[in-house]
Formats: sequence, structure tokens, C-alpha cells
Amino acid sequence: MSLEKLDQLNRKLHAISHAMAILGADEAIHMPPGGGKGRADSLSALAAMQHEMASAPHIADWIEEAENEDLTPDQTIGLEEFARLYRQRTCLPADLVRRKTASAMACEQLWRQARPEGDWKSLQPLLQDVIELAREEAGLRAAATGLAPYDALIDQYDPGSTMAEIDPVFSRLKSFLTSFLPRALEAQKKRHADHPLKPLAGPFPVEKQRALGLAAMEQLGFDFTHGRLDISHHPFCGGVPTDVRMTTRYDTDSFIQGLMGTLHETGHALYEQGLPRQQAHWPHNLARGMAMHESQSLFVEMQIVRSRPFWQWALPLLARHLGSSAFEGWSVEDVLAHVNIIEKGYIRVDADEVTYPLHVILRYELEQDLIGAKLDARDLPEAWNAKMEEYLGLNTLDKVADGPMQDVHWPAGLFGYFPSYTLGALMAAQQWNAMERKVPDAAERISRGDFAAINDWRRDNIWSRASHATTPRILQDATGEPLNPDHFIAHLEKRYPA
Amino acid sequence: MSLEKLDQLNRKLHAISHAMAILGADEAIHMPPGGGKGRADSLSALAAMQHEMASAPHIADWIEEAENEDLTPDQTIGLEEFARLYRQRTCLPADLVRRKTASAMACEQLWRQARPEGDWKSLQPLLQDVIELAREEAGLRAAATGLAPYDALIDQYDPGSTMAEIDPVFSRLKSFLTSFLPRALEAQKKRHADHPLKPLAGPFPVEKQRALGLAAMEQLGFDFTHGRLDISHHPFCGGVPTDVRMTTRYDTDSFIQGLMGTLHETGHALYEQGLPRQQAHWPHNLARGMAMHESQSLFVEMQIVRSRPFWQWALPLLARHLGSSAFEGWSVEDVLAHVNIIEKGYIRVDADEVTYPLHVILRYELEQDLIGAKLDARDLPEAWNAKMEEYLGLNTLDKVADGPMQDVHWPAGLFGYFPSYTLGALMAAQQWNAMERKVPDAAERISRGDFAAINDWRRDNIWSRASHATTPRILQDATGEPLNPDHFIAHLEKRYPA
Repeated sequence: MSLEKLDQLNRKLHAISHAMAILGADEAIHMPPGGGKGRADSLSALAAMQHEMASAPHIADWIEEAENEDLTPDQTIGLEEFARLYRQRTCLPADLVRRKTASAMACEQLWRQARPEGDWKSLQPLLQDVIELAREEAGLRAAATGLAPYDALIDQYDPGSTMAEIDPVFSRLKSFLTSFLPRALEAQKKRHADHPLKPLAGPFPVEKQRALGLAAMEQLGFDFTHGRLDISHHPFCGGVPTDVRMTTRYDTDSFIQGLMGTLHETGHALYEQGLPRQQAHWPHNLARGMAMHESQSLFVEMQIVRSRPFWQWALPLLARHLGSSAFEGWSVEDVLAHVNIIEKGYIRVDADEVTYPLHVILRYELEQDLIGAKLDARDLPEAWNAKMEEYLGLNTLDKVADGPMQDVHWPAGLFGYFPSYTLGALMAAQQWNAMERKVPDAAERISRGDFAAINDWRRDNIWSRASHATTPRILQDATGEPLNPDHFIAHLEKRYPA
Repeated sequence: MSLEKLDQLNRKLHAISHAMAILGADEAIHMPPGGGKGRADSLSALAAMQHEMASAPHIADWIEEAENEDLTPDQTIGLEEFARLYRQRTCLPADLVRRKTASAMACEQLWRQARPEGDWKSLQPLLQDVIELAREEAGLRAAATGLAPYDALIDQYDPGSTMAEIDPVFSRLKSFLTSFLPRALEAQKKRHADHPLKPLAGPFPVEKQRALGLAAMEQLGFDFTHGRLDISHHPFCGGVPTDVRMTTRYDTDSFIQGLMGTLHETGHALYEQGLPRQQAHWPHNLARGMAMHESQSLFVEMQIVRSRPFWQWALPLLARHLGSSAFEGWSVEDVLAHVNIIEKGYIRVDADEVTYPLHVILRYELEQDLIGAKLDARDLPEAWNAKMEEYLGLNTLDKVADGPMQDVHWPAGLFGYFPSYTLGALMAAQQWNAMERKVPDAAERISRGDFAAINDWRRDNIWSRASHATTPRILQDATGEPLNPDHFIAHLEKRYPA
């Protein structure tokens, strides 16, 4: 049977993915600096081997034959997802892949040097090469999938999402945020004047912060027989579903960054740990793309953790782990004031949940024009500034390092990735709304530290569905409606009274 | 060029070895328990892929063609070592490999259950299967290499060593030890009566023991940009030469086990870190087998660390890290009395350097008879007992769990491995002797914590030679003579005055 051959192939591909995931986490967490060269060589050789095995021409025959075999419904779904990935892997000629890899590698390496100095002049020609190759790639992916060129790029990170769906949603969100943000900032200023932020009474030793994070992770449902928490320079959630490697980083002056990093990654981790364990070597049982993954981390971070009920439960936990004297006289409002600060800024990764979508929409709009050849690298500083002025009232003409040079994505050749972040935030709010209709006392449960019913809803509606359908389909099935920005807007209006 | 094809192949094989080494270390050090199944699946798939790639029939042609190409001396050595390993990998029919793997896996699994209960009856038939397949394997390996059957097994772990060389050496050593041991024990008894062991003034917190171990490792020459120290249930040295993963374990009642574990593994680590960095993906630049590796760990543990000069340097280090009050009134002799205790016992892994070789020689003699079909599994309890009575004066007839059931090697199908341990001890003493002729003030240097000249000798004579020649050849070149047990015997007589 050809399905059996594909099954054996998937076991091998899965074994390599397992190795690469653990090696990647180890590199960021444990590896001594001198191990880097050998690790990079090993990872790139494994990736090349895996790609070669996964894109061999005879696999096309196996897929075709398997489609005519007597399959269970689950096997059919698995075969479809495998075929979709096979088309993605094989629709680019080897020569383009080589040129694209070389161009992106050169541009990313240059970017690492040029960004600190804001040296746009050096970056621009290499970035233009990357953009032109991305256009070529988008055209070929479009031809292979029947999607529009930019949609074909998005589809790699968020299967099923298209401009047709995203454009009106982002447009409504943009118009809301540009009017909401100034009012919310004004209201926050007044609140802070009336009730000044209580200073954090650090230092908070790393070991105590770690114990606090572990306690919160455990309560949120993280399974420590299938995962662990370490420290790395940038927090991440890596590893594999049966062995999740999560990290955070600590600042002894404030517990907030370390704890929020821990809990954001816990959201990713719960998704991974909740994926189906059966047939885990087939790709339809992997997590459903970047946008859905981000919806799971933001569900925990934005919907649960930055809420009032959460701190009703967690304020005593803070006092227990970090010392009750540090929180003498603190109310839940005092913590909320610290964790829900909004602020306009230049940098996407430092943005709060109100301003973040504006950073993303800006990039989404520019990417459409870059891929559509309406914009070239040389136009980016001005185009960037125009949108930053319009959306956030910030001028970036003299700040190119913190403008179009701030992210690694474009130098690395990643186009179509950015919208995922905000799609995740929107879906998280929409999922919360749908969950609360089934678990009406969800907020009250959170205030008692009871996350079981909430996780049950997520397991049934999101985690167990893995990659069994497109992102829009899973969202529709889970919430009863297509992507709807109203839930996110209502969430912001409630959290940040303006 | 066919050499170029082999070079590319070696890069791929090396990348998989790198992954397996790091995954293996991670499993023992960091992996949460629920990750075991997925990790085992990944590792066995990687091993199968590597074996398939490394034993493909067309490689035989590449080797033959490359032998006729214009090669540098280093390339010639690399090709020879690769060809040797290729013959080893391909000389068994696939069916025998399958039967052998299945039989050993079943026997090892049963052994894990049967050993604690001393259930020899259940183990015996499965062990007999394993032995019969080992005889079959030995015959085929003998035919492929021109070696005697048992030599062909030894050759996998210690390339170049043979019974013709080992038999007279072990015979002389056995006759020395059986007469020396009772006298040495008697003398020790008298010493302990005259100078009672000072009690260890614990507890010794793990963090302090770790800092002590790190300080000693660094002084001994361990390179922390290319390695690290962690904790695991059994100490080991794993990872890869540019990223060595070393472990120990700690007992808060005594610092000795943790420190000795650390320093034994440091010996292995220095060898790995001292291997050639150029062409590291070719097998002739890997460490030269089990016996040579053990000689490097025992050089550090037995020749350096358990010596008087070492503690002249290290006693102040102990006091600095573990607290000076714990060593108030201690002399170097007091530490030496603790670290150099000899004792007859049933268990090989618990044995000291005087009794250990007797445990090994017993196994070496039995293995010869097992592979030579002069002995079957059912004969082992009596044959074991007869030798234990003769060599150590211990009866094991009622102690089968601590007799022929104590080691995993035979159930796992590993025959020819045991002699490596004692060959390593002998070679370490012989290397020390040769080194001291070149560095006459080596002992004095050690008493000052200066290991540089000693390491230089080892780098030049052992580490840099990697697998460029057989074990006996490297030993001969380094010491000017073939394997000679006199150095080890002199070492014991000096350390344990009888």
C-alpha cells in the first residue's frame, strides 16, 4: 500500500523534525558558545536531508496511488495535508530555492551588522534582491495553488487565510484603533495621575521568580512530565509535543517580564501538549500554523493573564513566592495598572496589545505592495514613515534602524508571516467569547485558579483539531462565525476604558 | 572524485552522529520522563537512516576508486579508517543483524526485570540465544577481517588489540594481583588501625560541590567554551568534541563520589576536546575506541587525581569550596586514605583500581569460552563462582544477581568490550611512565596545579593521533614499547604499600 509507504516516510521525517527541534532548543538554552559552528553544520545537513527525502519525485506517485486506496476518514485528512505540504515543497525549482537561500542568508547576515548602525544604504540593494526573489516565489506558489501571489505566501504560515478575508478585518481594526488609541492614552494618563503606579519593591531573586512561574504554569495546566522551563535570551516554546522546551528570562528589578514571558509561552505549550498523540508523525496532527499558535499564546496572555479575575487568584501567589512585604497594601488594581500599560513606540516587539496591531497592519500593507511590485526596497523608508505618522503619530525618517530595519523577517525572506500575529490576537478574543458562552462562569473560575473547564473547551475546539482543517474552518467551527474583529475591539474597550 | 563523494557522505553521517550525541546527552540530563518514547523513536530512526546511508553497496565502489586517486597522506589514513568501518558495517547479512538486534533487545529487557530478583532461570534461555548469535557474528567478522573470532569482536571496541597480545599481559597481571591483594588489604587494615579515617564533616551542599568540581575541571584544562558540566543518574561524558556534555552526581554526605565522577569524566572530555578540529567529519579524527578512551579517563583519575601531589594542590581547594572548618587538621595523607581505599567485592562497577582488573579478567576468560563454544549460558553461574573464589575468595553461588547477572553487556549482546576497561588502566600507567620521562618534574608540577606540560604530552602523543593508527601502534609510538603491565604493577605497589 502506498499509504503505508507514506506512513514510513512520515516516521522518518518526524524523527528528523524531533532531532532538529531538540537541537534548536538546546542551542538556545544549554549550548556552550564554541558549539555553534558544529551545531549549525548538523542542523543544516539534517534540514537538507529532510527536504530531499520529503520532496522526492516518486512521492507524487505514492500520493496519487494512496488517494485511490481504501482510507479511513483520518487517513484521508492526513493524506490531504501531506499532499498540500508536498506541493508547497516541490513547486519551486531547485535553482530558485538556491538563489533565494543564498540571497536571504547574505541579506540577513548584513542586516545583523547594518541594523545597529542604521546603515540602510548597505542593506537596500540586498533587500531588493530578496524582495524580487520573493515576488518570483509568490508567482510560482500562486500558480501551484491557484491562490493570489501574496495569499500563496500567507498560506505557508496560516493555511487558508487570504487577503479577501483579512483586508476588511484589518481595515475595520485600523479605523477603530487610530481613533481609540489617543483616547485610551489620555484616559490612562488621568488614571495614573489619580492613582500613581506603586513602585515594584525588588529585587526579585531569579530562583523565586522561577518558582512563581512554575506554580502558575502548573495551575494553568502545563504538564511537567512532558515539558520543562529553562532560561534563554529570547523566550520561546520549542521541543516537541511530548517534550516541550519552554523558556523565559528574568529581570531582578521586575517580576513582570519574566512572568509574562513564562505565561505567554505556556499558551503555546498547552497547544503543543494538547495535540493528538495518535499518528503524531503525520503532519495533520501538528499545530495549525503561526496564526493559530499565536491565538493560543495570546489566549493565555491577553485573555486570561492580564485580566482582573486572574490577579484575584494570582496576587496572593505573588506574595507567597516573592515575599508578602513586597506587596503590602497592593490591590488587584495596582497589579493590573502595571501589567496593562499602553504606550506608543517605534518597535513592534515592545508594543502592547493596543498598539501592536497597528505595527502589523503597516507591515501587511507594505508587503502587499512589495510583492505586487508597487513598492521597492528604496521606497521603504518613506512609505514606512508615512504609515507610522498616520497610525501612531511617530516620525521614523531619522530612525531607519527602528523603522523598516527593525525586524529580521524581510532580510530573511519571510513575507506573509506578519499578519499572523494580529490574526492570532483577534482569534484569541473571538475564542474567548465563544468559550464564555459555553462556560459562563469562566471569569469566576479564573479568580479561583480553576482553568480546567476553559482548557477543556480549548482542547475540544482547537488543540484536538490540530491541522485537520484550515485556520478559518477551525475558527468557524469553534466559534460559529468567521473571523470577526468585534470581539477583539470589545475586549480592548473593556480593558482600557477611554 | 570518489573521495569527494565520500567526503560529502561523511559530512552527512557526521551531522546525524552530532544529533544523536546531543539527543542522547539531553535524554540523560534534561528530558522530562514523558519524552522517552518519542526520543527513542527518533534516535532509532536516525540510527537506521545513518546505517542505511553508511552501508550502501555503491560505497564499496567509491572506496575502490578513491584508493586509486591522488590522495594526501591524511586522506589516505582517512580512507583506510573509513574502509575498515565500512567492512565492519557490511560484513553481517541483514537477516543476522535483525535476529541479533531482536534477541539482544528481548534479553536486555528481560534482564532489567530479572536481575533485581536474581531470576537466572528466566534469563538463561534468552542469554543462550544471544550467545549463539554472537558466535555466528564472530565467525562472520573473523572471515571478513582475517582475525580470530573473539579478536574480531574485540576489534570493534579496541581496534588492533588481540588475544595474542592480551593473554600474556592479563596472565601476568592476574598472578600479581592474586598474591598482592591479600597483602595490600592486610597493610591497609594496619594503616587504618594506626591512623583511623577522619570522618567527613558534611553535609556538603550540591552547589558547593559543583563549584569545587568546576574549579578542578578548569585547572585540569577543560575548555568551557566547548563543553559543560551537568548532573545525571550515572556520570558520563557525551556530546561532541566541540560541545562536550559531561555529568556527575552528588551525595551531600560525601564530596568524594561527585568529585571523582567529575574528574574521571574530565579525562574523557580532555581527549574529546583535544581531537583534531580539521576534517573532524572523517572517522580517523574520532577517538580511538573504548580502551584508549578509558586510558584517558584513568590517566586523570588514577594517575593524577588519586596521587599525593594532586592533593597537595587540591586540599586547599577543598577547604576553599567546602569550608575550611570541614578540613580543620586534615593532612594530605588523610584525604589519600579516603580516596584510595581497597576492598574485595562482588560488583565490578564498585571496584577499586586493585580489584577491578580481576573482575575484568574473569569476564575476558569466560567470554573466550562462550564465543569458543566451550561454555554455554547454563554453565555460567558455576564457572563465575569458580573464578570469583579463585581470584577474590568470594562465593557467588547464592548471589547470581551480583554474579553473572550484574552487567548489562552480555544481555545486550556486547562481547569483547570488557577487556577495554583494564587495557585502559594498563595503558594509563604506561603513558604516565613515558610522559614522566619527558616531563621529569611532572609530580612537582601537579602539586602546584600545573597540568599544562602533562596535557601537552598527551595532546602530542594521544589526542592528536585520534584514530590515525591502531591502539597498539599509538601506544608503541607514545611510549616506545608495546603494552607492558609492569608500569601498572609498579604504580599499584607504590600507591598501596604491602
